[in-house]
Amino acid sequence: MLNELYKKLDSRFNDMVEIRRYLHMNPEPSFKETKTAKYIADFYRDLGVEVRTNVGGNGVVATVRGGKPGKTVALRADFDALPIHDEKDCEYKSTVEGVMHACGHDGHTATLLTLGKTLHELKDELPGTYVLIHQHAEEYQPGGAISMIEDGCLDGVDVIFGTHLWSTKPFRQIEYRVGPIMAAADRFEIKVKGRGGHGAMPHETKDAVAIGAQLVTALQQIVSRRVDPLEPAVLSIGTFKAENSFNIIADEAQLHGTVRTFSEETRTLIEQEMGRIIRGTAEAANCEIEFDFVRGYPTVDNHENETMYLKETAEQVPGVDAVAESAPQMGGEDFAYYMQHVPGSFFFTGAMLEDEKRVYPHHHPRFDFDERAMVLAAKTLGAAAIGVHDK
Amino acid sequence: MLNELYKKLDSRFNDMVEIRRYLHMNPEPSFKETKTAKYIADFYRDLGVEVRTNVGGNGVVATVRGGKPGKTVALRADFDALPIHDEKDCEYKSTVEGVMHACGHDGHTATLLTLGKTLHELKDELPGTYVLIHQHAEEYQPGGAISMIEDGCLDGVDVIFGTHLWSTKPFRQIEYRVGPIMAAADRFEIKVKGRGGHGAMPHETKDAVAIGAQLVTALQQIVSRRVDPLEPAVLSIGTFKAENSFNIIADEAQLHGTVRTFSEETRTLIEQEMGRIIRGTAEAANCEIEFDFVRGYPTVDNHENETMYLKETAEQVPGVDAVAESAPQMGGEDFAYYMQHVPGSFFFTGAMLEDEKRVYPHHHPRFDFDERAMVLAAKTLGAAAIGVHDK
Amino acid sequence: MLNELYKKLDSRFNDMVEIRRYLHMNPEPSFKETKTAKYIADFYRDLGVEVRTNVGGNGVVATVRGGKPGKTVALRADFDALPIHDEKDCEYKSTVEGVMHACGHDGHTATLLTLGKTLHELKDELPGTYVLIHQHAEEYQPGGAISMIEDGCLDGVDVIFGTHLWSTKPFRQIEYRVGPIMAAADRFEIKVKGRGGHGAMPHETKDAVAIGAQLVTALQQIVSRRVDPLEPAVLSIGTFKAENSFNIIADEAQLHGTVRTFSEETRTLIEQEMGRIIRGTAEAANCEIEFDFVRGYPTVDNHENETMYLKETAEQVPGVDAVAESAPQMGGEDFAYYMQHVPGSFFFTGAMLEDEKRVYPHHHPRFDFDERAMVLAAKTLGAAAIGVHDK
Amino acid sequence: MLNELYKKLDSRFNDMVEIRRYLHMNPEPSFKETKTAKYIADFYRDLGVEVRTNVGGNGVVATVRGGKPGKTVALRADFDALPIHDEKDCEYKSTVEGVMHACGHDGHTATLLTLGKTLHELKDELPGTYVLIHQHAEEYQPGGAISMIEDGCLDGVDVIFGTHLWSTKPFRQIEYRVGPIMAAADRFEIKVKGRGGHGAMPHETKDAVAIGAQLVTALQQIVSRRVDPLEPAVLSIGTFKAENSFNIIADEAQLHGTVRTFSEETRTLIEQEMGRIIRGTAEAANCEIEFDFVRGYPTVDNHENETMYLKETAEQVPGVDAVAESAPQMGGEDFAYYMQHVPGSFFFTGAMLEDEKRVYPHHHPRFDFDERAMVLAAKTLGAAAIGVHDK
Repeated sequence: MLNELYKKLDSRFNDMVEIRRYLHMNPEPSFKETKTAKYIADFYRDLGVEVRTNVGGNGVVATVRGGKPGKTVALRADFDALPIHDEKDCEYKSTVEGVMHACGHDGHTATLLTLGKTLHELKDELPGTYVLIHQHAEEYQPGGAISMIEDGCLDGVDVIFGTHLWSTKPFRQIEYRVGPIMAAADRFEIKVKGRGGHGAMPHETKDAVAIGAQLVTALQQIVSRRVDPLEPAVLSIGTFKAENSFNIIADEAQLHGTVRTFSEETRTLIEQEMGRIIRGTAEAANCEIEFDFVRGYPTVDNHENETMYLKETAEQVPGVDAVAESAPQMGGEDFAYYMQHVPGSFFFTGAMLEDEKRVYPHHHPRFDFDERAMVLAAKTLGAAAIGVHDK
Repeated sequence: MLNELYKKLDSRFNDMVEIRRYLHMNPEPSFKETKTAKYIADFYRDLGVEVRTNVGGNGVVATVRGGKPGKTVALRADFDALPIHDEKDCEYKSTVEGVMHACGHDGHTATLLTLGKTLHELKDELPGTYVLIHQHAEEYQPGGAISMIEDGCLDGVDVIFGTHLWSTKPFRQIEYRVGPIMAAADRFEIKVKGRGGHGAMPHETKDAVAIGAQLVTALQQIVSRRVDPLEPAVLSIGTFKAENSFNIIADEAQLHGTVRTFSEETRTLIEQEMGRIIRGTAEAANCEIEFDFVRGYPTVDNHENETMYLKETAEQVPGVDAVAESAPQMGGEDFAYYMQHVPGSFFFTGAMLEDEKRVYPHHHPRFDFDERAMVLAAKTLGAAAIGVHDK
Repeated sequence: MLNELYKKLDSRFNDMVEIRRYLHMNPEPSFKETKTAKYIADFYRDLGVEVRTNVGGNGVVATVRGGKPGKTVALRADFDALPIHDEKDCEYKSTVEGVMHACGHDGHTATLLTLGKTLHELKDELPGTYVLIHQHAEEYQPGGAISMIEDGCLDGVDVIFGTHLWSTKPFRQIEYRVGPIMAAADRFEIKVKGRGGHGAMPHETKDAVAIGAQLVTALQQIVSRRVDPLEPAVLSIGTFKAENSFNIIADEAQLHGTVRTFSEETRTLIEQEMGRIIRGTAEAANCEIEFDFVRGYPTVDNHENETMYLKETAEQVPGVDAVAESAPQMGGEDFAYYMQHVPGSFFFTGAMLEDEKRVYPHHHPRFDFDERAMVLAAKTLGAAAIGVHDK
Repeated sequence: MLNELYKKLDSRFNDMVEIRRYLHMNPEPSFKETKTAKYIADFYRDLGVEVRTNVGGNGVVATVRGGKPGKTVALRADFDALPIHDEKDCEYKSTVEGVMHACGHDGHTATLLTLGKTLHELKDELPGTYVLIHQHAEEYQPGGAISMIEDGCLDGVDVIFGTHLWSTKPFRQIEYRVGPIMAAADRFEIKVKGRGGHGAMPHETKDAVAIGAQLVTALQQIVSRRVDPLEPAVLSIGTFKAENSFNIIADEAQLHGTVRTFSEETRTLIEQEMGRIIRGTAEAANCEIEFDFVRGYPTVDNHENETMYLKETAEQVPGVDAVAESAPQMGGEDFAYYMQHVPGSFFFTGAMLEDEKRVYPHHHPRFDFDERAMVLAAKTLGAAAIGVHDK
């Protein structure tokens, strides 16, 4: 059975590439991915696969019912893109200004669609039920997972698996980890409310750029001075926005960023220390500073049994050369929510390009991955889904 | 003659207010002020005043020829607006999103149009010729003055006067100054070219926001540490722009700002020190930082004879309560260029509102001024223009 | 045999306290601890124990030879104090201005002396040989361990154990860890060479305080931005020294600090990034900055077999309530060098005071510990040393 | 009479050099200048000049009574040195470790002693009385002037003159200024009270060095952002002191500095803004920061009549090539206090060395001046003192 699966998946590599590149050229940002959702639903409908759309928003859930009794296994792939402008030079470059699949969700979708098609073809022989969760909006809080769960995507599900193609982990390598594998990912917005005025008369203003710049620098000391060095933590500010004519001192500066942690204690400490530094900066600058800290995805906390099972399964997948323990990753993932409801495991599928000059981290404008990894991802997910009935 | 002038101007206060408010509601940014130019030209044409349009761009020059021989006197008013969103609550608020007369150029235009009309009516009695220079693009380098001069607006001119309504100087007060009255105003653009990436993996990036923030803070020390404390100098950064999704570390940050000085030596020192700090920051951050320093308007350097004449003239103008020496102003003005060609003087007309809660500095989103000051500005300019023939 | 040992040690608690408090009142800084060395040597000599002095400096090595054949086991205690002024209010407060046992080495010494005396009394019954290494200068690089090893203190030694009393770990708890238990500890010195001058004329100087302050802030971003968040790392500057009359701008600022890491890669990265930031700061400030990075103690890397043996031994020691795995500690220890020559294990003996208001971290001017922990440290070291022959 | 004076002074150049160099080699810091005081008093006593010692501390006042009636004219020279280590290479280098005449007070003293001797010799011919005020402690607040005035040094005095030799103004040039010639000079002390601890465990501490460094940087923005660019102002921190072992995080950092201003409004603004920034920094760092702002010498505010008289006098002094208006100087001077009681003028005597490699600003460790300027200073002070009776 698994050999049949593997053979079919191997033969569909070109289809996967075609799907992935189509999506890559037509990316849609989080919560606006309606055409992609239609593309996915149409794919299943054309095959005659049972499909539900608008699940918790733009989510799509397809169901393949096996001919034999068994568990209900969910597999999940996300399909939103990022507000990044594609800077790659290639034929399948994004055609949408300022939007790009810079995290591999196009590959996740191509992988799951192709696996779904294959499971559908094999369904008479298969035990159990396969719930194919195509999730929208992974990249932007509150994410799509919560609303899809609320809309029933996990109803009756016994176990869930998901994977992330990873551009900086070796091709042909699968990485697993028991316990926290991805960080809690929080978001914050800071608004420095100064007093604008003429660039030549700073003493009549409260310079929001100068104040904001000091704040950025001060916030960096939370990780270096206030967090236990043994606790991994990140505080990054991605946006600093104070846009005026060059000779007008800014009234307001907006700072948006993210905090990543692996423990609730450190998460709370950082939020508190940010508040303290922001209050102090406002006091020093004699202005108001608004601070909004939005708790995002919790830690992706892999279940032990499902993860060890996944590891053993991966070790048997042809084409996988190595199965290794992953270090915890600082990125967040709303896959975390699924595992608050059902047991499961989330793993990485190495997808590093051979040409090292083309290797870029996730969310980089030149991000890309080795498309052959999609086949290995599909095989591992498929094998895990099918084999789970024997446990 | 002057009494006649004063009387007419007093009677046209409501007209000035109407013109000013019309312009205030219909502002156009620098170099795009075509409708305003047409409005000005039409005003003169309707009166039968000789007018030349498209002078060095959107500039308009009207000429009133007196019935008696005399000097040729130029009077100048600027008419462009700023890229600031009007936040006032009033009937004559800007109707254009993000554009506003936040520097009083609407008032300058209403003043000069009304004075021009009045001179035109009195022309048979007047000695000499009156060149009414309506200049576009004072707010954005290279400004409109250079191209208007190149296009002949000063041809045959013997002397020039101009004024600036000033929202933080007392109403009924005229301020003059021999020598430097307004600063050299330079502009710079800095582009921090980091390396973008995922907000959770800072070590794989070069964080352009963090680097830019340190740079903003470091640049502030030029004025406090490297410039002679006796030399007035300002370095302000009005724009800090690095806009990304909150969880993406910025590839690039753009900083735009202005430098104001009163001596060539300090101007050069600041440019050099900026270059040094930027090079050092790039070295420390292991990234590239582009730096473009664009020299702007030079110091407005008032001529001694014309300024003392202006002062004495102003002391005779009815309604003017005080004539005081002005401190040098840190703002720049391309009126500077006119006085590199002909003698002249630039002065301030106090226009502070009585309700101190409504008093805001120039370039503030709530900027406004006491409209009665337009009458005093017109009287002083008119008296200076007419009286110059007796000198 | 062990019961005999435990009984004797229990009965000598008051002696330990007396020794510890004597040493606490008479601390000597690293490399100057001659009186302490004499005190230790005299203690052994009075008992008739074989003792060697001036071992690699101020080191003292006593040897107790058991009546039966067996291995040679080394136990190590350090005895230098710190240049910290004692701020405690207690009878046994340091009597030396600016010098203090703020790390518990007085307790280590009292523990090992008392254990040595006890082993000496039991020697006829004991297998093997006991080398009691009293090491000077643990607190200041290059430390005393290297020179004591070169001077033969490990000759013939089969295995080594050492412990650190720990003021913030619970009393009655022993903590072990296989692999890295304490960090690599490097030291650096930075000398900002500005140009001094009158405080009122900053533009004629290069202000070493202002430059040094910016450097301190910039260096903090290495840990927060340039090191992998999953790699524990610390960079602390303990000394900032630029002392002048208040109105003289400093010619020079000296910064001394420490770097702690657990991997060679991160250690090298930090050294490189420091160099880069220092070069960039010097370029920006147009001055010279000297940078000296002195690699210090490597990671204390516990051997697996000896550590698991130690753990099992500790679990049998009466009075020890809990034996737990320790997190890696960011502190450095030149015990690391001993384990580059012989197998061994270094562990923590919890010594937190019950009165939580008196609990301070190591190196704090109010540091103190629960003296009863010395008995548990002595029992565990003694049991490990004796039991090793049975392995 | 003046010719006689000039001739005698010219002939005593070598004596002046000898006195100056003796003092240069034997400097004493402010308020501890007892040997210098004795040297001065002995000088006058040996000549038979009336002298009073311990005037308001270490001050010395000699009085030369002319043979003819006239006004009482005071001349003042200061004689304390600075806590700077002499780094010059020359025969007359300071012999006292860490103390140096780096401001020229040795020269002032040699000048006034020699002038006093000369006036004494000429006294029968002279009108009026000459009060020679040798003031201690000019360099350290509260200075010696207040206590000397309280102790009567100005009793009966009609007018006062003083000069400062200036190493960066041209030799043979005298500089005067009506109104503010030297700044108000205030002093401040800041104590950052963090919480010390082990350098490897920053999260258990409040790092006084990191906090202090951020504070230094933030305080620099007062001058660049909060003070009117047209108001000269300086804020300099001369001392940053947090001295510990390299691996101990500092409990406390001490910052000492000075503020210089020319208006009471700016002086108050800076004190307020410092307080605000310090409070904000303490809030952000969750620690206490002590702030002590000690108002020092007020502005040296030259009287118009006396200054114009001095200017005209200087123009007649042989050897003086130029008499120029001085820019205001940012340095402070307790000469300010004398002119709060009697009219007077304080001027600069240019003393720049010809070899430009040897030119250093005041308070620099290599400060030196052209000793020939002492003769010109003596002539100008003497001529002013004698000529005043003719006014």
